[in-house]
Amino acid sequence: MTTGAKVSLPVIKRLPKYYRYLLTLQESGVVHISSRELAAHLGTTASQVRQDFNCFGDVNGRQGIGYNVDTLISMLETLLFGEGDLIPAILIGAGRLGKAVSRFISRDTNGYQLTAVFDADPAEVGHHIGDTDIQVRHISELVEFCKSNPPCVAVLCVPRESARQITEQLVSLGIKAFWNFSHYDMSVDYPDILVENVHLGDSLMSLGYLMRNENH
Amino acid sequence: MTTGAKVSLPVIKRLPKYYRYLLTLQESGVVHISSRELAAHLGTTASQVRQDFNCFGDVNGRQGIGYNVDTLISMLETLLFGEGDLIPAILIGAGRLGKAVSRFISRDTNGYQLTAVFDADPAEVGHHIGDTDIQVRHISELVEFCKSNPPCVAVLCVPRESARQITEQLVSLGIKAFWNFSHYDMSVDYPDILVENVHLGDSLMSLGYLMRNENH
Repeated sequence: MTTGAKVSLPVIKRLPKYYRYLLTLQESGVVHISSRELAAHLGTTASQVRQDFNCFGDVNGRQGIGYNVDTLISMLETLLFGEGDLIPAILIGAGRLGKAVSRFISRDTNGYQLTAVFDADPAEVGHHIGDTDIQVRHISELVEFCKSNPPCVAVLCVPRESARQITEQLVSLGIKAFWNFSHYDMSVDYPDILVENVHLGDSLMSLGYLMRNENH
Repeated sequence: MTTGAKVSLPVIKRLPKYYRYLLTLQESGVVHISSRELAAHLGTTASQVRQDFNCFGDVNGRQGIGYNVDTLISMLETLLFGEGDLIPAILIGAGRLGKAVSRFISRDTNGYQLTAVFDADPAEVGHHIGDTDIQVRHISELVEFCKSNPPCVAVLCVPRESARQITEQLVSLGIKAFWNFSHYDMSVDYPDILVENVHLGDSLMSLGYLMRNENH
């Protein structure tokens, strides 16, 4: 379905937003939507919306009618979730943040499957994660587990001090991508690894800057 | 310190990254750093780094020596944290995610002060949030609380179904900015409100797209 050319990151970041919004339209029984209406909801322009969908080839809106909502959803599902195969993911760090974000990988709505959770704290070991039947394992079991159950993604919810060392270990174990909540900027040391950073502190600081400096 | 002109969002998003990295340099006793070294760490170019700092006027690196680390940190602290006054923030939603992210506002390292937490679930009311002395209040106390303790920021950790209605209420109560974890895209309805979105599901979906479509 893709054209072969790499799609730019801003377009990729908009795909889930289109998808979520189109699902709400589908739920409400909407059958067609124009690029202008989609643009208004996404905070972008109609021309940008058309360009975004053109990246993926064979979806065209019809003049005066717009895009078919079901068709767009189906296209986006293939792009975002492939053939429906879930991506195996492990969580490193079962603290408060790790527990909270585990929900996003233990449910299949985002395309992932949580296969194991690890923590260095013996007090966490053996506890169930959320409402799953997955029990926290001690970090010393990581190597053995990954050899028999190769994960693709590691979710990193550990302090910066331990993040660098655990990342090195995970990369050597064949992890190809990280959902990184730690403050370790791994893409500097591993430019070929896929990293999606969620730096919550940075996000708050940026908001603070805007509040203090832009007269809001 | 600012030049008066609006600084672009990508620059603002890089400020916390510069700040965090410079703090680690300061801890290690580093006194000067070149734009080239900063760029390598941030995954950008030396020219971009110089442009970024030029936005804020009076900080110049010296040829062959670089920027003074303490001077940059001090500039960034003024930009990000003002005169050190903390921004009063309330948290709506004391579920697992709300509890986890409360830590980022209840500590003063990001420039905020958590003043109250609200939840609609009576079972949550009265519980302490994290290691703070703040007890969860019932959402019915929101209006009265905000009238006597005007907050600036609301942290929204509620499901999409309730997000729209609570946002309307919060805007009418004078909230100027949101740290939004809900899937409600409030900037469409409130274009003048500052919103920093953290859409964890979107972040995972984008990563999934990259894994499935870019041959990693």
